[in-house]
Amino acid sequence: MVEPEGGSPGATHPAGFLAAGVVAGLKESGRPDMGVLAVAPQSREQSASAAVFTTNAFAAAPIVLDRAVCDLGGLVAVVMNSGNANACTGSSGLAAAAAMQSACAQALGIGSDKVAVGSTGVIGRQADAPVMAAGAGKAAEAVRSDGGPDFNQAIMTTDRFPKICAVDVDIPGGTVRLGVCGKGAGMIAPAMATMLCVVTTDAVLTATEMGPMLDAAVGGSLNRVTVDGEMSTNDAVVFLASGASGVRPDETGLARISEALEAMLLRVALMMVADGEGATKVMRLKVQGADTEKTADAVARAIGDSPLVKTAMNGADANWGRIMSAAGAALAGRSVPETALWLCGVKVVEKATACALRPADVGRLAAGMKGPEIDILLDLGSGDCSTEIYFADLGHEYITVNAEYHT
Amino acid sequence: MVEPEGGSPGATHPAGFLAAGVVAGLKESGRPDMGVLAVAPQSREQSASAAVFTTNAFAAAPIVLDRAVCDLGGLVAVVMNSGNANACTGSSGLAAAAAMQSACAQALGIGSDKVAVGSTGVIGRQADAPVMAAGAGKAAEAVRSDGGPDFNQAIMTTDRFPKICAVDVDIPGGTVRLGVCGKGAGMIAPAMATMLCVVTTDAVLTATEMGPMLDAAVGGSLNRVTVDGEMSTNDAVVFLASGASGVRPDETGLARISEALEAMLLRVALMMVADGEGATKVMRLKVQGADTEKTADAVARAIGDSPLVKTAMNGADANWGRIMSAAGAALAGRSVPETALWLCGVKVVEKATACALRPADVGRLAAGMKGPEIDILLDLGSGDCSTEIYFADLGHEYITVNAEYHT
Repeated sequence: MVEPEGGSPGATHPAGFLAAGVVAGLKESGRPDMGVLAVAPQSREQSASAAVFTTNAFAAAPIVLDRAVCDLGGLVAVVMNSGNANACTGSSGLAAAAAMQSACAQALGIGSDKVAVGSTGVIGRQADAPVMAAGAGKAAEAVRSDGGPDFNQAIMTTDRFPKICAVDVDIPGGTVRLGVCGKGAGMIAPAMATMLCVVTTDAVLTATEMGPMLDAAVGGSLNRVTVDGEMSTNDAVVFLASGASGVRPDETGLARISEALEAMLLRVALMMVADGEGATKVMRLKVQGADTEKTADAVARAIGDSPLVKTAMNGADANWGRIMSAAGAALAGRSVPETALWLCGVKVVEKATACALRPADVGRLAAGMKGPEIDILLDLGSGDCSTEIYFADLGHEYITVNAEYHT
Repeated sequence: MVEPEGGSPGATHPAGFLAAGVVAGLKESGRPDMGVLAVAPQSREQSASAAVFTTNAFAAAPIVLDRAVCDLGGLVAVVMNSGNANACTGSSGLAAAAAMQSACAQALGIGSDKVAVGSTGVIGRQADAPVMAAGAGKAAEAVRSDGGPDFNQAIMTTDRFPKICAVDVDIPGGTVRLGVCGKGAGMIAPAMATMLCVVTTDAVLTATEMGPMLDAAVGGSLNRVTVDGEMSTNDAVVFLASGASGVRPDETGLARISEALEAMLLRVALMMVADGEGATKVMRLKVQGADTEKTADAVARAIGDSPLVKTAMNGADANWGRIMSAAGAALAGRSVPETALWLCGVKVVEKATACALRPADVGRLAAGMKGPEIDILLDLGSGDCSTEIYFADLGHEYITVNAEYHT
């Protein structure tokens, strides 16, 4: 993988894509709030797609619409807005999402079923259909081949920085490119802010190949920070292949693209964690030695979600008792006497009992806790299952941002 | 129920109890950190007890000891310390807990199996057995009939105020008294701080009666704020009956005592929520119309645990979209189109869609959000099951307290 020099163009790095971000007037700040990303006209014949949407029971109108009317394997464009989540907005919200979709499709000269819609912002505010449609049309008309960063800007909300990256992948037959534009911050609770992500490639792919490829990559990346079942009303990931490179991957090529895709989405996921509202560091937590995957996930999730753990990390406090307490609550009623815990590479618990630390280890631990990345390894000593997640700390800025953001 | 005048004596309000709180030297602050509460010698023959302990897989040494060696229906005393949780401390922690128990028992002239041990403080710090034993003996020797508040003081950690109350209950045959001393703050996550609670009565009760009575009362009170499975390593509730009133309740009397017990524990639970670290208000959340109790609980828990909801409440922000998003994540993949939501008595969602609020309702909502108690009612419209929980908001003080408390 090679990162292009001079700032990443994100989703317009691969050939055959056009994008734009414009001001539709949904954000009170007057910042860009409507973006369109589309396969270029000359590549539309051979393009293909895949998509993953939130499982939230109160899925936003655009998600409901996408599921209901889109040709999810044959998408050629996405239109996404910030400034209004268009969630809990009923039939008028659906109409607004459809108006946005239709205006974008019309401006691009394609069918509405080829356009996926996404939204992020405040939930429960009625969307103004004419405003959204006008913005979508305006964005669709403004698309250009270097518009990735503009598109990305238009979908940001509380994000402190864009989540954008791009890579070249050498495969048998030639070089293909991949690019990502995403938004989202601090995805593991406390968060559930919306995660939107568009991934592009100029490889020649089929929808049948792309679906499983995207599912696997999301499972190994974004789901390690959002965690299944914790998805917001609006989460969506769309994967578009323009085929503009003319390179048709063989099996080796497909495997390399899959790897690159997962690596890029993990990178974006980690950017989201690092941008966790008020976050000052990222914790990488591995839970191993669990009897089942489910146990490993539940324990990891309990630790990553624990505000007591998160605040300790924020205070650079090696208070690992909070990690044990959170894990023990998730393991209620179970017996795990062989449990061991490492914090910043220092073994602090053995056989569920505090280790007597040597002075050198105490120093190493104290130094490690002050770093921007904290490794936590919990071994339950009762099986072969493991999982790995990433989470942010919890600091004052989180409170400031979230007690004030809104309405 | 009648609250005694002039400040509550808590657990020494009922006749036949003695208590004390002393400085054992476990807290760096030099504040009281060791408490003993015991049935008075003349009542020990007829006393009885019940206890409920944490289900946390890493239960602290005192909990492990209590379960292993105590006569839980025949307890006559509790010895509890703050300043050290004695959790994840292995066999030496067990020895320290046993030393504490034995010193207390010896000073009171009773068997060790009659003394329940409890601890709260930092996890994973080795307990100093001789110091704990000396403190336990000192506290046991200092017990007196008005020592309830001293006992309570000795078990507090980050608590801003004591959780203490006492009532008189008229039943056929006479009047019996109940008293509670408790500690704990902000028990629903973000928290999992230790909850310790001792309830006393001078009614003549049997252990067989007290067990189910305590289970039911905890289920209807403390479990509505701690939520099963979210218990810390050290949570414990002990119920002691001295029989010193000489009043033997008939069936009506037992029912009244049960009611009073649950009401008192709910009151203490709400005090804990109100004392949530940094809490400025208490939310009462009812989830109804669920298909199963499990669904109702999962949804209520997801909302009560959501830092986005908690911070919105802290900011007096009627951002109910965060409530819907948290509920929807807990209901992933389900369809609940009949969902309705009321916030501060104002219907904000109908059929999963935002209501158009009248100006009067907007004003009522804004005013309600500024109050110290917020009512939230979520009707899933898909069944007859319901649950009710209480939770605190999340503010800056939580971060300050928890990023700094410890080590």
